[in-house]
Amino acid sequence: MAGSSFGQQFRITTWGESHGPALGVVIDGVPAGVPIIEEDIQRFLNRRKPGQSKYTTARAEGDQVEILSGVFEGKTTGTPISLMVRNKDQHSKDYSNIAEVYRPGHADFTFQEKYGIRDYRGGGRSSGRETIGRVAAGAIAVKILEQLGISIVTYSKKIGPVEAQTIDYGEIFQNPLYMPDAQAAEEAGKYLEECISEKNSAGGVIECVVSGMPVGIGETVFEKLDANLAKAILSIGAVKGFEIGDGFQVADSTGAENNDSFCMSGEKPVKLTNHSGGVLGGMSDGSDIVFRAAVKPTPSIARSQKTVDIFGEEKEIEITGRHDPVIVPRAVVVVESMAALTIVDALFSNLSSKMDSVISFYKDDK
Amino acid sequence: MAGSSFGQQFRITTWGESHGPALGVVIDGVPAGVPIIEEDIQRFLNRRKPGQSKYTTARAEGDQVEILSGVFEGKTTGTPISLMVRNKDQHSKDYSNIAEVYRPGHADFTFQEKYGIRDYRGGGRSSGRETIGRVAAGAIAVKILEQLGISIVTYSKKIGPVEAQTIDYGEIFQNPLYMPDAQAAEEAGKYLEECISEKNSAGGVIECVVSGMPVGIGETVFEKLDANLAKAILSIGAVKGFEIGDGFQVADSTGAENNDSFCMSGEKPVKLTNHSGGVLGGMSDGSDIVFRAAVKPTPSIARSQKTVDIFGEEKEIEITGRHDPVIVPRAVVVVESMAALTIVDALFSNLSSKMDSVISFYKDDK
Amino acid sequence: MAGSSFGQQFRITTWGESHGPALGVVIDGVPAGVPIIEEDIQRFLNRRKPGQSKYTTARAEGDQVEILSGVFEGKTTGTPISLMVRNKDQHSKDYSNIAEVYRPGHADFTFQEKYGIRDYRGGGRSSGRETIGRVAAGAIAVKILEQLGISIVTYSKKIGPVEAQTIDYGEIFQNPLYMPDAQAAEEAGKYLEECISEKNSAGGVIECVVSGMPVGIGETVFEKLDANLAKAILSIGAVKGFEIGDGFQVADSTGAENNDSFCMSGEKPVKLTNHSGGVLGGMSDGSDIVFRAAVKPTPSIARSQKTVDIFGEEKEIEITGRHDPVIVPRAVVVVESMAALTIVDALFSNLSSKMDSVISFYKDDK
Amino acid sequence: MAGSSFGQQFRITTWGESHGPALGVVIDGVPAGVPIIEEDIQRFLNRRKPGQSKYTTARAEGDQVEILSGVFEGKTTGTPISLMVRNKDQHSKDYSNIAEVYRPGHADFTFQEKYGIRDYRGGGRSSGRETIGRVAAGAIAVKILEQLGISIVTYSKKIGPVEAQTIDYGEIFQNPLYMPDAQAAEEAGKYLEECISEKNSAGGVIECVVSGMPVGIGETVFEKLDANLAKAILSIGAVKGFEIGDGFQVADSTGAENNDSFCMSGEKPVKLTNHSGGVLGGMSDGSDIVFRAAVKPTPSIARSQKTVDIFGEEKEIEITGRHDPVIVPRAVVVVESMAALTIVDALFSNLSSKMDSVISFYKDDK
Repeated sequence: MAGSSFGQQFRITTWGESHGPALGVVIDGVPAGVPIIEEDIQRFLNRRKPGQSKYTTARAEGDQVEILSGVFEGKTTGTPISLMVRNKDQHSKDYSNIAEVYRPGHADFTFQEKYGIRDYRGGGRSSGRETIGRVAAGAIAVKILEQLGISIVTYSKKIGPVEAQTIDYGEIFQNPLYMPDAQAAEEAGKYLEECISEKNSAGGVIECVVSGMPVGIGETVFEKLDANLAKAILSIGAVKGFEIGDGFQVADSTGAENNDSFCMSGEKPVKLTNHSGGVLGGMSDGSDIVFRAAVKPTPSIARSQKTVDIFGEEKEIEITGRHDPVIVPRAVVVVESMAALTIVDALFSNLSSKMDSVISFYKDDK
Repeated sequence: MAGSSFGQQFRITTWGESHGPALGVVIDGVPAGVPIIEEDIQRFLNRRKPGQSKYTTARAEGDQVEILSGVFEGKTTGTPISLMVRNKDQHSKDYSNIAEVYRPGHADFTFQEKYGIRDYRGGGRSSGRETIGRVAAGAIAVKILEQLGISIVTYSKKIGPVEAQTIDYGEIFQNPLYMPDAQAAEEAGKYLEECISEKNSAGGVIECVVSGMPVGIGETVFEKLDANLAKAILSIGAVKGFEIGDGFQVADSTGAENNDSFCMSGEKPVKLTNHSGGVLGGMSDGSDIVFRAAVKPTPSIARSQKTVDIFGEEKEIEITGRHDPVIVPRAVVVVESMAALTIVDALFSNLSSKMDSVISFYKDDK
Repeated sequence: MAGSSFGQQFRITTWGESHGPALGVVIDGVPAGVPIIEEDIQRFLNRRKPGQSKYTTARAEGDQVEILSGVFEGKTTGTPISLMVRNKDQHSKDYSNIAEVYRPGHADFTFQEKYGIRDYRGGGRSSGRETIGRVAAGAIAVKILEQLGISIVTYSKKIGPVEAQTIDYGEIFQNPLYMPDAQAAEEAGKYLEECISEKNSAGGVIECVVSGMPVGIGETVFEKLDANLAKAILSIGAVKGFEIGDGFQVADSTGAENNDSFCMSGEKPVKLTNHSGGVLGGMSDGSDIVFRAAVKPTPSIARSQKTVDIFGEEKEIEITGRHDPVIVPRAVVVVESMAALTIVDALFSNLSSKMDSVISFYKDDK
Repeated sequence: MAGSSFGQQFRITTWGESHGPALGVVIDGVPAGVPIIEEDIQRFLNRRKPGQSKYTTARAEGDQVEILSGVFEGKTTGTPISLMVRNKDQHSKDYSNIAEVYRPGHADFTFQEKYGIRDYRGGGRSSGRETIGRVAAGAIAVKILEQLGISIVTYSKKIGPVEAQTIDYGEIFQNPLYMPDAQAAEEAGKYLEECISEKNSAGGVIECVVSGMPVGIGETVFEKLDANLAKAILSIGAVKGFEIGDGFQVADSTGAENNDSFCMSGEKPVKLTNHSGGVLGGMSDGSDIVFRAAVKPTPSIARSQKTVDIFGEEKEIEITGRHDPVIVPRAVVVVESMAALTIVDALFSNLSSKMDSVISFYKDDK
């Protein structure tokens, strides 16, 4: 089944394997008139690029994006935008050790069982490089949101057991772990060095905050904004959990604590608190949308693990080569991208909610 | 935008408001030849019906289902199945106190802002009664799974702060809270009575376990099995979080702990542990699928809350009438239904994964 | 596969068999604030109702519609609208003669082969009664179009070999064949009486004209307005052809004849002719949309036909009972409904075409 | 709205403008294990390439395809296949004469109105070059059909007023017009030379025949096989009509003539005639699928035409440069591609029609 598209009105389709000729994305449903240059997209891709620090792999991947369609004289034209990043050195490495063995924590086994064949070079389609298409598209979604006065901030809330104690947006880009707390970032760094020395890896939690949302975005029942955010976030390879607002803490809370009271702020009703995380009944409620993603530890570790091969033999495997000791920092921009893509689609889908708005649109148009 | 459908190959469309004439669902894409009688569906609906115990509302809602199409001589015919439940007494109550006031924790405000109009009688479309369609459809999905040797067990893992310490499937239907631990159920019952006496309410956590899954179900990238489960579960009104396998605990784990090693079980590779919760790379890995949903406390509480009305006046509101002190027990069957619907769709979408299978299918067919 | 839904932003899902308990439709994505009463829908249903004249079957089908959801205090609320029509006397007839025999020109054979089972009572899902859901939904689509100043006129252009020579809109509802030419209607009536006396049936052509369309409706490439109209119209049971504008006559035309020149009409560019039928590049061009549907002769005829039964025996069959000698007049409102449904979906999908419009929408909204 | 994708289970997404850097397609939902090499795709692209004869434009477009993903060691892997063709010389020409003027019969006006901006270089997204993606994808669809014993033949049935009198499949690739009748091809050639000398252009009709279809392919109601074929074919730029089987001739036919009787052929029921064109009730009936597309004359003609410009000035325009005097021959492979894409999607969607088949699939799988 076709499974590489996301979104309805605003839809992306990604393609590409880690060691094929290239990876890319087609973004369809972009309104005409959005100013876009390659630099906008490159800046996003650079945030997920390897080799940014000692905590990320040092492979020299350039990841230069090329705009192949949909942009004319610096603006989108309403037609699909095709973006591509060429892979470098895709034939150079020796994959004989993993070609026939299922790496624990990876999708080798499930790919082989589902398809009877798999591109075993570096994870193929299930590699982290698959997120290049998401991030390139996310850059365009963020451009659209900016024009609507909506902004997104995303950061590492937790690296292994080390949690950010303060949320200082200004700090996020000052440390290689994208943490909003300098001291936590330093501690997390030490923790990661331990992991490396022990041939082990760490997980973490990413938090995302969306500000400036209009009220009522998201559709009732199945196309709820939080439901689509959950899908978007769980579709990222290493994510094992999603929560919005108070999330799993609601289990221990009570109605009196968890309900957000309303008051008036000028002529607008606003919530006094934000336990809901910015959605009520699946629709944005005017408060910041706040959600978190749990990211599992990097499955590629250098210590010996038990496994089996494609012939049914039990084996031991050590995954050598350079691997990030933690996925979280590079996944921050992926989470931000998926959030942006989800919200843009929801904003466009909302345009026909009221008959009066539709009448106004076409009256002005005539 | 149309937001009341779920699924691609196997798709449900729900409709109905809590106090309109009826609620229902259309289930499209059901294979021909599945034996279905109204009793199968009624049994599921009875699990979510109010008035089952002192912890659920005592309204005398019969919720009798009627099969309107798609079943002939006791079997599905391949055409859409329409199921309907009539609402009783939908005109009887006085809603003047909530018609113009936004209840905290409810979707009154967002509905009003999005649509400029709302059916204020008992929550309208955002009422818990909306789940009748999901559960009626879920009964059919579970029938399909049974024929494929796949079974689902769902229970209240936690009610307020009280967590089940043992998981005894035999106990689940023995207590009104659907907990798998008799002692925890008793403690939770006491906790709920406190909540009632304090005009307050409780949240909780639901856990769902799917056994007997073939390997490789779920599509790569966006239509991952866990991504669609997350969407399905977050689309349920009061759910604020979803996690699969170790979920948010992966943040504190390490690769060495979190990776599940493989070994051989007869001729099949199996995992030695199940930290993954039964999915690798978005595809089922042969272990049980294990996920949890965080459910917020019932927002309707009898104590006074601050809010505003549709005219912009600040108000106090007390939500009288009978309301469940906790949503969790009645949501258990809703979670189970959404899981079943998601998995059936994924199973059908998987049928064209290998060219060889498609060739066999049509060769046999000719 | 789920095949009973049509549309993306504005989507209908139909259900029901000719002799099951009921038939109906769920209409999802209707904007809030459209005034709707049962009378609006009933008027449309009455146009397809049997027993309107001697050329349509005389069965006493009431076809009374019931609104089950989505309308509150006379207006749509933005939630799905469920409409239902109960079947009468669905158990009364003896179907033993067709239960095991494939009627020529009907879908009995293909249903049996695809599903291995079929509801043989009066055609089941492939009966003309399946269009009840389409027409009920079409009534709502037409209401939406009216509010946007868009109108649709549909009529029998040709009944058997008798073609309307003049197009007089005022005449359409004056004759039972819905022809826009009184004299042609009379001749066609005579032709149909011959058909009846010869135990035979007639085909025809339906024409539909949509006026008042804004320019630019329809999406480029696959979601072209004419492509979706073609799908909508071919999805009607007996339709075997679709053409827009000059249609099949373009084969004999030349570029110089077929191209429509532009001129200015006040401040607006308009076309001097309308060979295109109101679409250029799949988008509405401001001229009337004009298309035609070819409708096959009623397959149920009383004369003896060769066929086979489900056991592989060759048989002779005579299809007795009352059947329309021509499908065309009752299909007129079905064609109109499908056109309206297609256009409403296209109008809503178009709302996000320009970034400037989206910015205006949300600026006004804040 | 996203409008550049086609298909559900088997879905293509095309992108690219005539004078942008490249054009391409992503094909998602291809089963694993289909042997594919670039040569397979190139052969299809060569059939639509310009410069094949004096009746097609002589521009030296290489149209070399590159496979960027989804194929590994000569076989599909189940992941999306990305195909790209680089445009040559995209910056060389002077478009000042058409940048501000609406060409009659082209989509310049509708693009400008819908988006407020357009890529005016050679038609941009509405250029015939947009079909490169369709044809590249079509090559893969045809490969899949071959493996299932299904074959497609497509040809020019009519060029201008000249219609093929005989259908000789062996002749189709022997003449540059892809006509199945050598003598008609010769006459049509003469007619086209007249058109060229008169600065005019011709239309025509393409016929497509699909053999070897299993029975029951296509879904009931909206996803009928013929409905999706109609959409697929009308989505091709210059097509103005679609008919299947007897098509528009059914209007003049009678039930006795139009119904296809059944008889037994060995153990299988077959139709004695094929007025239906291979579909009954929207599902394949085992006979050849036979449909036709009406193609309008090339709108680009060298003679002077009246039009207006984007500033609202009335103008005269002569479209110079080399343009095909007829679109039909190069559109033959586009029609074939769209038919193949539609049928593959329908075949995959059909796999879950019977519960017994699904049970067998997963029993074998376990």
